[in-house]
Amino acid sequence: MHIQKVATRDARYELEAGAGTDAVHSAPIYSFAVSQLTSDSGLQGTGLVLTLGQGNELVCSAIEMLAEQLVGRELEELMANFGEAFRVLADHPKLRWLGPHKGVVHLALASITNACFDLWAKSRKQPLWNALLSLNAAEIANLLDLSYLEDVIDRQQVVAILEEKLAGREMRSSILKTGYPGYDTSVGWYGYDDRRLSENLRRSVDQGFTAFKLKVGGALDVDVRRAHVLREVAGPGATIMLDANQQWSLPKAITACRELASVRPYWIEEPTHPDDIVAHTKLAAEIEPLSIAIGEHVPNRVVFKNYLEAGAVKFLQPDCTRLGGVSEFLTVSLLGCKYNVPVVPHVGDMGQIHQHLALFNHIALGLPEVFLEHIPHLRSHFVTPASVSGGRYRTPQEPGSSSDLL
Amino acid sequence: MHIQKVATRDARYELEAGAGTDAVHSAPIYSFAVSQLTSDSGLQGTGLVLTLGQGNELVCSAIEMLAEQLVGRELEELMANFGEAFRVLADHPKLRWLGPHKGVVHLALASITNACFDLWAKSRKQPLWNALLSLNAAEIANLLDLSYLEDVIDRQQVVAILEEKLAGREMRSSILKTGYPGYDTSVGWYGYDDRRLSENLRRSVDQGFTAFKLKVGGALDVDVRRAHVLREVAGPGATIMLDANQQWSLPKAITACRELASVRPYWIEEPTHPDDIVAHTKLAAEIEPLSIAIGEHVPNRVVFKNYLEAGAVKFLQPDCTRLGGVSEFLTVSLLGCKYNVPVVPHVGDMGQIHQHLALFNHIALGLPEVFLEHIPHLRSHFVTPASVSGGRYRTPQEPGSSSDLL
Repeated sequence: MHIQKVATRDARYELEAGAGTDAVHSAPIYSFAVSQLTSDSGLQGTGLVLTLGQGNELVCSAIEMLAEQLVGRELEELMANFGEAFRVLADHPKLRWLGPHKGVVHLALASITNACFDLWAKSRKQPLWNALLSLNAAEIANLLDLSYLEDVIDRQQVVAILEEKLAGREMRSSILKTGYPGYDTSVGWYGYDDRRLSENLRRSVDQGFTAFKLKVGGALDVDVRRAHVLREVAGPGATIMLDANQQWSLPKAITACRELASVRPYWIEEPTHPDDIVAHTKLAAEIEPLSIAIGEHVPNRVVFKNYLEAGAVKFLQPDCTRLGGVSEFLTVSLLGCKYNVPVVPHVGDMGQIHQHLALFNHIALGLPEVFLEHIPHLRSHFVTPASVSGGRYRTPQEPGSSSDLL
Repeated sequence: MHIQKVATRDARYELEAGAGTDAVHSAPIYSFAVSQLTSDSGLQGTGLVLTLGQGNELVCSAIEMLAEQLVGRELEELMANFGEAFRVLADHPKLRWLGPHKGVVHLALASITNACFDLWAKSRKQPLWNALLSLNAAEIANLLDLSYLEDVIDRQQVVAILEEKLAGREMRSSILKTGYPGYDTSVGWYGYDDRRLSENLRRSVDQGFTAFKLKVGGALDVDVRRAHVLREVAGPGATIMLDANQQWSLPKAITACRELASVRPYWIEEPTHPDDIVAHTKLAAEIEPLSIAIGEHVPNRVVFKNYLEAGAVKFLQPDCTRLGGVSEFLTVSLLGCKYNVPVVPHVGDMGQIHQHLALFNHIALGLPEVFLEHIPHLRSHFVTPASVSGGRYRTPQEPGSSSDLL
């Protein structure tokens, strides 16, 4: 099977008032820069990355520039050594200057990578989680570009981790039956008032969720009040996460985290600038035992490596629509294994692809079952929207990565 | 004076064979994504950022999206508080997602910022270096977005540094007469063979240069041979710099630097991935007393802050066509002051703007006179190409930032 054609689609979706808002992204239009690969047999692979509307066309243009070199490639041969193909794309001698490995060109690479994995899983007639689980350790390692990680992990160590984790794999596969737990982000957008927040929470609790996220990062007294509303309505046993979306300076973050500690957050997410490894390290020491989660805006595996080496974060939130796609997500997940830090994806794909990756991560890498972010706003636009019931993602059975849009 | 119109220009220039090549950028087409601001009085401000050709149009598109909010702004009012305007542009609620503060959107911001400074200096009928030197400490501080630096430097400290450096300013102003020293990068592009390298070097020495850069980052034996050619032809007293353009892993960098130490390089530039602060820190310890220089691909002030806090580098190479323009360049220069690390710009602008900034940095910030990179390939395309003679940049006298293209 060969890749015969690459096309893009600029898909933008208006949200209802307040949905998707946080302390910095005040008027998002959830949009996907979509890569569409067509094989010579007519099979279609779909790859997604999220943007907030404006500029989505820039990512689509970059996809076209980067992906042309995939046309004519035999699919199994490409995927048998995808790590090398990824590296060549990421180091495009002209486009690399626009990153490197970050920003528009890296988002474009993510979309392309995700389309390759979708097409490949479909060609094998397996859901992505199962296609990945079918590979042996060496085959998984071949998917990955491990360059610039050599000082902490190499191919041999990746294979060793994967083989070591074969133990217990069958037991962990029971997650396929129970479904992977979800947490609800859509209760507490920044644009929702206290009443809306409470209503959303009650509905979410009724739906079976036990973990919830609230957007903070504005006036501290307002943040604290809203956090207490969340804690009261959700109850003392609920798991609650607070997300500042990078809006604090380090001094402000220290103050804010200490104040917000009273609601016992499971983590504080993106307290300050996502490039500021030193600030996160200092903050972690100041606010112990509070945990920091970060990843939504960490551009690549190299920066994740730096966060892990610094011991700055207790939860990794890689996103295969921010990193260079499924394969770099898996690379970061292996770093999580190595440093013993749980991987709890941010879901720019609305959880469609990450539901597959969370299953793989738990079963094959032995990463702990935490929960997967759930954002339902785009459900009606997917061919096979994630099925979430009783607060759990039900294991997807259709071939591919559940990325096809209507 | 008001900004009446924003336009862009996608300017691309073919280079002669081998020129501009390094270990990763094998076939550059030097290109500028140009911002053109027109005032209601008909004055034109030009802002540049460099790309390597493909994708230059993405930056131009992003400029149009970002810059529209400047139309109608009064120029002196805008520049009196440019730091705040910069922050608003950098945190555009939709386009920020494509960075943040890196990649295509940040390059676009750089081009816009540079156009604002060019227009402003022209409106004052002063060369940019002089327009900047005419400002007092508070006015300089107002140009800067210091957000996310609060833990190491704030407005008050910026003002204090500037006022402290008033001492000696008159003496340092003698640089205006002698001209700022240059170093020659164009002798040793990666695509030049040993013979070409030697010829270039001899010509450069004849022109008065005493400092030279060589591209390395390929097969180590070839790198070592070429470095020895450079040292022999340039002579024992010459200053030579080696630039690996990010092509080494950390283990490879350690080996390569130790081998290359025999030619006594003044610095090793971009030994590994520009996001890898920890690797640079480890490398610095391993190769002492060799110095590391980095900056060409460091996307913003936050990452520079991290490099400085880690003590990883001995020379900063910020580039106002990579950072968000002149103002973020000045912010990084102030960080250089604070940490006592010399600032030796990378010149994506071919030195046209940086010749102004190097003068300001030395005179107003008291940063040491080192030398400014010189790359002559685009000389014929500028209205007022930098005048370099006897190995020194001659102080530009025309109003503005010397950015206008033919």
